[in-house]
Amino acid sequence: MRSNGRGESQLRPMNLTVNVNKYAEGSVFIEMGDTKVLCTATVDEKVPPFLKGQGKGWVTAEYSMLPRATQSRNQRESARGKLTGRTMEIQRLIGRALRSVVDLRALGERTITLDCDVIQADGGTRTTSITGSFVALAIAVSKIAEQHRLPAFPITDFLASVSVGIVNGEPMLDLNYEEDSTAKVDMNIVMTGGGAFVELQGTGEESPFTRQELNQLLELGERGILQLIEKQKEALGPIALMIGSGQSGREV
Amino acid sequence: MRSNGRGESQLRPMNLTVNVNKYAEGSVFIEMGDTKVLCTATVDEKVPPFLKGQGKGWVTAEYSMLPRATQSRNQRESARGKLTGRTMEIQRLIGRALRSVVDLRALGERTITLDCDVIQADGGTRTTSITGSFVALAIAVSKIAEQHRLPAFPITDFLASVSVGIVNGEPMLDLNYEEDSTAKVDMNIVMTGGGAFVELQGTGEESPFTRQELNQLLELGERGILQLIEKQKEALGPIALMIGSGQSGREV
Amino acid sequence: MRSNGRGESQLRPMNLTVNVNKYAEGSVFIEMGDTKVLCTATVDEKVPPFLKGQGKGWVTAEYSMLPRATQSRNQRESARGKLTGRTMEIQRLIGRALRSVVDLRALGERTITLDCDVIQADGGTRTTSITGSFVALAIAVSKIAEQHRLPAFPITDFLASVSVGIVNGEPMLDLNYEEDSTAKVDMNIVMTGGGAFVELQGTGEESPFTRQELNQLLELGERGILQLIEKQKEALGPIALMIGSGQSGREV
Amino acid sequence: MRSNGRGESQLRPMNLTVNVNKYAEGSVFIEMGDTKVLCTATVDEKVPPFLKGQGKGWVTAEYSMLPRATQSRNQRESARGKLTGRTMEIQRLIGRALRSVVDLRALGERTITLDCDVIQADGGTRTTSITGSFVALAIAVSKIAEQHRLPAFPITDFLASVSVGIVNGEPMLDLNYEEDSTAKVDMNIVMTGGGAFVELQGTGEESPFTRQELNQLLELGERGILQLIEKQKEALGPIALMIGSGQSGREV
Amino acid sequence: MRSNGRGESQLRPMNLTVNVNKYAEGSVFIEMGDTKVLCTATVDEKVPPFLKGQGKGWVTAEYSMLPRATQSRNQRESARGKLTGRTMEIQRLIGRALRSVVDLRALGERTITLDCDVIQADGGTRTTSITGSFVALAIAVSKIAEQHRLPAFPITDFLASVSVGIVNGEPMLDLNYEEDSTAKVDMNIVMTGGGAFVELQGTGEESPFTRQELNQLLELGERGILQLIEKQKEALGPIALMIGSGQSGREV
Amino acid sequence: MRSNGRGESQLRPMNLTVNVNKYAEGSVFIEMGDTKVLCTATVDEKVPPFLKGQGKGWVTAEYSMLPRATQSRNQRESARGKLTGRTMEIQRLIGRALRSVVDLRALGERTITLDCDVIQADGGTRTTSITGSFVALAIAVSKIAEQHRLPAFPITDFLASVSVGIVNGEPMLDLNYEEDSTAKVDMNIVMTGGGAFVELQGTGEESPFTRQELNQLLELGERGILQLIEKQKEALGPIALMIGSGQSGREV
Repeated sequence: MRSNGRGESQLRPMNLTVNVNKYAEGSVFIEMGDTKVLCTATVDEKVPPFLKGQGKGWVTAEYSMLPRATQSRNQRESARGKLTGRTMEIQRLIGRALRSVVDLRALGERTITLDCDVIQADGGTRTTSITGSFVALAIAVSKIAEQHRLPAFPITDFLASVSVGIVNGEPMLDLNYEEDSTAKVDMNIVMTGGGAFVELQGTGEESPFTRQELNQLLELGERGILQLIEKQKEALGPIALMIGSGQSGREV
Repeated sequence: MRSNGRGESQLRPMNLTVNVNKYAEGSVFIEMGDTKVLCTATVDEKVPPFLKGQGKGWVTAEYSMLPRATQSRNQRESARGKLTGRTMEIQRLIGRALRSVVDLRALGERTITLDCDVIQADGGTRTTSITGSFVALAIAVSKIAEQHRLPAFPITDFLASVSVGIVNGEPMLDLNYEEDSTAKVDMNIVMTGGGAFVELQGTGEESPFTRQELNQLLELGERGILQLIEKQKEALGPIALMIGSGQSGREV
Repeated sequence: MRSNGRGESQLRPMNLTVNVNKYAEGSVFIEMGDTKVLCTATVDEKVPPFLKGQGKGWVTAEYSMLPRATQSRNQRESARGKLTGRTMEIQRLIGRALRSVVDLRALGERTITLDCDVIQADGGTRTTSITGSFVALAIAVSKIAEQHRLPAFPITDFLASVSVGIVNGEPMLDLNYEEDSTAKVDMNIVMTGGGAFVELQGTGEESPFTRQELNQLLELGERGILQLIEKQKEALGPIALMIGSGQSGREV
Repeated sequence: MRSNGRGESQLRPMNLTVNVNKYAEGSVFIEMGDTKVLCTATVDEKVPPFLKGQGKGWVTAEYSMLPRATQSRNQRESARGKLTGRTMEIQRLIGRALRSVVDLRALGERTITLDCDVIQADGGTRTTSITGSFVALAIAVSKIAEQHRLPAFPITDFLASVSVGIVNGEPMLDLNYEEDSTAKVDMNIVMTGGGAFVELQGTGEESPFTRQELNQLLELGERGILQLIEKQKEALGPIALMIGSGQSGREV
Repeated sequence: MRSNGRGESQLRPMNLTVNVNKYAEGSVFIEMGDTKVLCTATVDEKVPPFLKGQGKGWVTAEYSMLPRATQSRNQRESARGKLTGRTMEIQRLIGRALRSVVDLRALGERTITLDCDVIQADGGTRTTSITGSFVALAIAVSKIAEQHRLPAFPITDFLASVSVGIVNGEPMLDLNYEEDSTAKVDMNIVMTGGGAFVELQGTGEESPFTRQELNQLLELGERGILQLIEKQKEALGPIALMIGSGQSGREV
Repeated sequence: MRSNGRGESQLRPMNLTVNVNKYAEGSVFIEMGDTKVLCTATVDEKVPPFLKGQGKGWVTAEYSMLPRATQSRNQRESARGKLTGRTMEIQRLIGRALRSVVDLRALGERTITLDCDVIQADGGTRTTSITGSFVALAIAVSKIAEQHRLPAFPITDFLASVSVGIVNGEPMLDLNYEEDSTAKVDMNIVMTGGGAFVELQGTGEESPFTRQELNQLLELGERGILQLIEKQKEALGPIALMIGSGQSGREV
């Protein structure tokens, strides 16, 4: 039996609070159980040098944990003078995942930066960051669409992410920290609203896993992601209708 | 007339929410108008090398702003690879101010680290951080006092901080960002519950100020700080009674 | 048709040259087509601080590319003053993958560091590094086993890695640089000799992928890895017999 | 009684030697007792990016101590790879203070950088740096005024700085290192020739201070600064006449 | 008697393998006994800022050792976050030496970067890097000369380098690591094909040396360098004829 | 004709002022023409880790230029966050040179750090630093010898350094900046009082040099160094008698 009496294929209680930041073009506070992440989207009317003059936009992400987001205090990366490998890996993953559902050409020569700051961590901070920052991104894009005549709404599909793993021999959905640290297999899945995989990162450091175990995990993950996307739709309201619509979004 | 119809000697609406973090020994979310800071206190049962074996404790602080705490996005200091001078100056100030009301010998060989993370900034982030982190510190110290037999409660007085300045020729209390950026004189005051100064930092970069103007500013500041300390007392409840009591705090 | 007339499920020509370094406890020069990596294993008779006194060893990896390993010259990370996110991600992957087939307790309080230096790059440098460094690791471990009475040979299974991807709509094995840069899906697979997955990292940045496509890719990868493990066995000669044998390895 | 029989409101012996550097546009060697600082002013015919095209100039400062300026050797900040918070705080203070008496518009699009290098330290290095660098600045500005037709002499008033503090219960002027390290209150004052405050930084880390103590300290400081400004006038000779004169300075 | 029965004025076995890298404009693998260095030359059609618009080119070098090039593993400079003084000194030396035989004006506004990566080290890595990178440079320059109409072949003379030293009281040529670490005097000589000195770096840290000893060392070095240049000529084939010819090199 | 009517084999006017720093165990201000360097020696009663427990001491050096020591202002290395290659090369040279005349065993387990800070630069800063820091070192060592019973005075010989070069076809002694920047050959020589070479660093980047030219330069250098050593003797007074005496130095 999992803590809080959760079933093996059950997500933790989830909350999405939108527009929590006074300045950002898009913002969301996402809670998955005790994991809490603030996601803000910043729009910049220019692109990085490698994209200049190509008529395409860019979406990128940064990720950080507050020092006391965790059980014991972590040294700040600003004080260490450099990012850890874990942080770099996570922010590359978030950016790559989000770009997979953005039509960069429709976005035009703009950069959207998603900042995912973990206020409190209890497992699944990277997947929660992806699920939350998708919503912040959609809000920011809807503001761009209102103000500029875009050829089409640049977000082509929904996108959410969840972790799955094998804990005490059982496949489980949405691991908290305690479950994650005893899991023999740990997998992060990013999927679109259309049910296709965008990222699949499975690790069996403690013990390798079979094709059959992989299939069980993928099914659990798929089920969880569909529920997350329902929550995203509720939180986004009318903006949700524009996603994947091909419309310009001016009328939102 | 100030925004929101505020009078010149009136503080912004202020909120202190305690125990907002699941893991930290002390935590507070402080809001002064649109300035919002999360303060956590972490207790470590050892001291920095320069204090080893002296039977004294240490209190230190770190300060950071989330990238989109401000109107336009700031680059993360972790990405820049170093702290700005402004950040260093502020975290030195917070630590120094808090230590002035801590009996480091009564604390014993422990370090308390205050993390002040600015979630949203609208002027006065350093003074707000001091006011908030005093509360987080008191909560953390009360936990130590419950678990260990201390010679006396190590916090000797209340402590709060506020900014004052001369804007459009008028002395004003608790400047927001807009006021701060047009002020000709800007001063940060840190005071104890006993009404004495701990830090006084006045700057007249745009225009120097006279003794008389200084006196007006100090009076405004004093009045504001007394109100802030009342709010701290409410938020702390029974812990407030231990501060400056000389008692051991075991009975809180 | 692929370059060099290669079939879709065909590996590039592969060479493993062992003991190429005069000083290292284990060393291999691995060539997969035009991708060439020098892997050395260094044995250190101590462990990192977090493992001290636990009776367990450690295996870690570092990865780097020579500046002119690629079409256009890359700036050295030593000159930049920091590692890129890509490098950190890769060296974490190599270390994690190798540890999955090492019995760290049988290894004893020792650290083995695998250095993977890419002399020339033509796609698949991370998977080639894993396949090559497994061999360097096995040689180094066999030297330890000769000199010390270990409870069992610490390597519990073979391990190799290969990339697969969907290029021009076709699933393909072992992508070279040109194929990799036009692939819509790109996946790195690490498997044991026993046919179980250790790492699975699939990315559909350009276009998401279905369960069916995933299955095709996994089958291609499995086939390729079995061939790579055959090559590892040839290169290791009698050492290969110790792997997974549970024997102490003294008699190699 | 203070060392050297100094009275409580007496400055240490002070020397200003001008034009000590062969290359710099302005240079001064300032001695306040055993505190010795070399100040050079460098004129650069451009401004930092944030001021470009605004028709205004900039004044900035850098501060450093030679490793053996102090009792025990300090590690170089160049070897540590970064500036300490103390250094950053001081150089921000020096720059801000000097700018308060410079008409940046009259200066035109030029940057003047003041380098304050502490050759020997015995307390008050930051205040001594301000007093000395004002003179180096004035010399450099007079050279600009000779060579270019400025609308007015860009220095609008004199500026000097001194420390005051409460040592053994007594307010004292111009603390040396020994006094400073036992002071319960420590304050740095920057004032203009017109007697107005530019910066006021008081710290009561060891013990807070009252309004009355503050007033005593401000009076001591004011008296000291007037004497320092007399010395500056002597050292500057005819250049002193231009300061605050509103004249163009061509005729110096 | 030296190891391998080498005489005191005898070089170690030397091999030059050209064109070992698929991408670089020039590349050489040089072996001097157990010292092995990979040298690649990269041509960039622009110059560093300080040379812009002067019609001159630039030649520069970078040097690095693989972590296990040596007896015990060295930490990577990329992991340390900065270059050691030794590395900086060596790469400045290589660049300076090569430039002495390049007509930078004839080269035109191009930069050639020589990367010297030490695969295995057994003494003399800096001198071996110079000897090898001269060959890589010549190959790259010949490619430029084929593709562009240069006023003259930009390499004006041959250039090679060797170490000499006094070991057990005897002057010796081309020290290996063991000899180098017991030498009382150690000298690196760089000479042109015309027999003139380009660099002379002699160090008698353990014991100073006399004019007579210096002369003996210079004679040994001269003899060694002439042999190295013969090897360079063989390796370069027809390109060797262009060096110092003053011809444009188009006809190579 | 050289500037100031100097002859080709004539040194610039030279001054050594000893004991210029209140705190350092040894200190010297050395002027060679317009090149001015402050040298301080700091004694630390421990050795670096690599020497611990071997009964030997260590001598090391650091070198820096003030930002406005030169014609145009140099960025501080502390602001850049790292030392330049030039600085590292120079401080390694100074340390190595000084150690060649120190009996590290007689010194005992102590470290002496020489700080050479260039106050003004006009060519020859590294050779001037060596000549000056030798004197600071001798003073510091004499203080150790007074306070501790050393087996012998640890300085075994005098040591000084000068530059020579070929300017406009003429060999010249002690180049100033202008001469140095037009020299075709540039050489730094470090010699002992006994007339032997400790370091020889000759560079013919602009044009290689012959054996005959080398000999002319060495003779010029030798003559200059003998004069510098005479000046060192004068400055050191009775301490000079201990150098190379083998006596314990207690009686200085």
